[in-house]
Amino acid sequence: MTEAHAREAVRGWAESVRTAQRVLAASSADQRRAALRAAADLVRGRADTVLAANAADRAAASGLSSALADRLALTPARLEAIAAGLETVAALPDPLGRVLKRWERPNGLCFERVAVPIGVIAIIYESRPNVTAEAAALCLMSGNGCILRGGSEAARSNAALIACIEAGLAAAGLPTAALLVPSQDRAIVGSLLGAAGLIDLVIPRGGKSLVARVEAEARVPVLSHLNGINHVYVHKAADADIAERVMLDAKLRRTAVCGAAETLLIDAARPDLARRLVAALIERGCEVRGDAAVAALDARVRPASEADWGAEYLDAIIAARIVGGIDEAVAHVARHGSGHTDAIVTGDAAAAERFLGSVDSAIVLWNASTQFADGGEFGFGAEVGIATGRLHARGPVGLEELTTYKTLVRGTGQVRG
Amino acid sequence: MTEAHAREAVRGWAESVRTAQRVLAASSADQRRAALRAAADLVRGRADTVLAANAADRAAASGLSSALADRLALTPARLEAIAAGLETVAALPDPLGRVLKRWERPNGLCFERVAVPIGVIAIIYESRPNVTAEAAALCLMSGNGCILRGGSEAARSNAALIACIEAGLAAAGLPTAALLVPSQDRAIVGSLLGAAGLIDLVIPRGGKSLVARVEAEARVPVLSHLNGINHVYVHKAADADIAERVMLDAKLRRTAVCGAAETLLIDAARPDLARRLVAALIERGCEVRGDAAVAALDARVRPASEADWGAEYLDAIIAARIVGGIDEAVAHVARHGSGHTDAIVTGDAAAAERFLGSVDSAIVLWNASTQFADGGEFGFGAEVGIATGRLHARGPVGLEELTTYKTLVRGTGQVRG
Repeated sequence: MTEAHAREAVRGWAESVRTAQRVLAASSADQRRAALRAAADLVRGRADTVLAANAADRAAASGLSSALADRLALTPARLEAIAAGLETVAALPDPLGRVLKRWERPNGLCFERVAVPIGVIAIIYESRPNVTAEAAALCLMSGNGCILRGGSEAARSNAALIACIEAGLAAAGLPTAALLVPSQDRAIVGSLLGAAGLIDLVIPRGGKSLVARVEAEARVPVLSHLNGINHVYVHKAADADIAERVMLDAKLRRTAVCGAAETLLIDAARPDLARRLVAALIERGCEVRGDAAVAALDARVRPASEADWGAEYLDAIIAARIVGGIDEAVAHVARHGSGHTDAIVTGDAAAAERFLGSVDSAIVLWNASTQFADGGEFGFGAEVGIATGRLHARGPVGLEELTTYKTLVRGTGQVRG
Repeated sequence: MTEAHAREAVRGWAESVRTAQRVLAASSADQRRAALRAAADLVRGRADTVLAANAADRAAASGLSSALADRLALTPARLEAIAAGLETVAALPDPLGRVLKRWERPNGLCFERVAVPIGVIAIIYESRPNVTAEAAALCLMSGNGCILRGGSEAARSNAALIACIEAGLAAAGLPTAALLVPSQDRAIVGSLLGAAGLIDLVIPRGGKSLVARVEAEARVPVLSHLNGINHVYVHKAADADIAERVMLDAKLRRTAVCGAAETLLIDAARPDLARRLVAALIERGCEVRGDAAVAALDARVRPASEADWGAEYLDAIIAARIVGGIDEAVAHVARHGSGHTDAIVTGDAAAAERFLGSVDSAIVLWNASTQFADGGEFGFGAEVGIATGRLHARGPVGLEELTTYKTLVRGTGQVRG
């Protein structure tokens, strides 16, 4: 497909999705819920079809790494999780029509800020078929039209899942055109990213190169995160057991998630605790790359280079540094962090509040693991991703974050005169 | 200046503004208020200096049109309005630290979404020196650093006003570097627009070509509006007097503002009212360009072409069309509007609510003039512009819209395990 053809195709798709999206925006929550529940039933009822499609995808994608092959694979249990996920979203409070603010002016005008859908959202993602269902469910429940551009390696699985969701929409009397799967042609991604005025938001979900490309090329608003360079700062007034528990969970519960800790900052006043934390990490198979002060505590520590402070390992490796106090910790996070998620461990509430106030990341925690950076853990039911930009939404992007607002003004004939 | 030099210059400026902005973000509302009040006093105290700088600007800019020359001109009264504007912003509620939402999870984690500054904001604007003071005041009061790139024709006036605000910041013990005026070199605007990761938000304020350039080139988030193609829909149940009053104000109170109405839609059931409205407009010097049905009502109506439905006249011209009812009116607005501000006039509350619910513009009014599309009229005290994009802020951008949020999570040692 030429670029010009791809642009024209995207224009046509976006316009047809928008037309259907307007119907969705005007639909009742009950209707949207019914669509998602019907889709969940269909995912269960058509399990054999979906699993066969997935088997065909896996057979065709024989060259994948074992990690990617695992992400692509559907099992009966994973399919049930997908169906249950659709039902979870259907059970969430309706994000549309919420009155965010209401006020009156001396001239009698009544102002009301109400939540409305963003419009047409393009999700660009890689091989995990569960993203298809989750992203579609969140977009549709929030009244948004949705263009789902998944990876070609999962095309059959995605198509089978989307057929269930489309049938769910139809069963609820909603337009199936609110959901669209564009062609797998390579030119399409560029056209989606360039479709200013046609697509209202792009959300990339996948590896770093995909996110970097979207952030670099997009001419439409993007909600995304490229890095999660997250810090755990162990303050001098930290409880040692809490520090160890939080640190180990933040780093090692799962090392490949964006909420995993990548740097440990320890107060210089607690050399014994520092030694204990470093030993605990190393004994659990985590490589520790420390500054000179950390290296002096344990011979197994490897020297950190400047690059380690900005590294997102997504692996059992951690950078560790001794700092002189909160100000130094905050300055380190400001300089090297990625604005994703950072935590302090301390028994001193005033110190905690100072850290919470000064660290300008999407999520800042006190005495809790950075791995809580997750829409489910926030109580959002699901998330379509995590945003580290500064506008509109920061942190997990759930139903409410997929809405915007308009202002309604009710008068009785007022003019400015 | 070469492009590479401009990029380096912008990097340095943005970093120095960000360092100062962090101090501002941590300052008390009282300190920020004191800075703005001190600045207001200085604007009054240095009136002669500012007016002399403005006289020099006007002398140098002898080629300006009379409209532009008027926008550039400062008078003692306008200077007093600028000083009073600074005080108005200082008196507004602190937008920082507001708790937007608070919730708890079954594991005991307490979540709090709090308002924080966006960061470093670049305002790119044209000849009106009052924008300098208003934009700086709103940015500083909301804890944002601010790069003010005004037009070269107002450079001396802007510098004199900024000197007052910088002195106000210094008097309040706040860093003057939170406010920066870049060089007038032409390469700078492009570098500001390209400074992803360095500048968090660009707000253009000025003519259509400036806004169009910013929207087309920016690699950083933008809050802006290009067009205000605003509609007044006179429903069949409209009160005739209210319809006339609202229509005339919406179109003619000021024709060059973005909230001015550009299209009149009248229900086919009210030919007499349509005739009255058309006559009232024409008698006040407004050209009416109508469809065939409107033209049939009054011989003075000129024929509308397809282009008229998408025209932003910013002049005493209006496009007028007879529609078959709410659905047709809503469809017309969806097709031709710019998502800025649209109004319905009706005595039928159910019809009004249907219009308010179906028209997806930043501002939708019932029985009130579209010219209320203004931060002051919203009760925001001031505005740095109006946004018609779909993310973050829609409508007037005031103090609250210049903030974003972070999520604080307070725990007692919770891990995901």
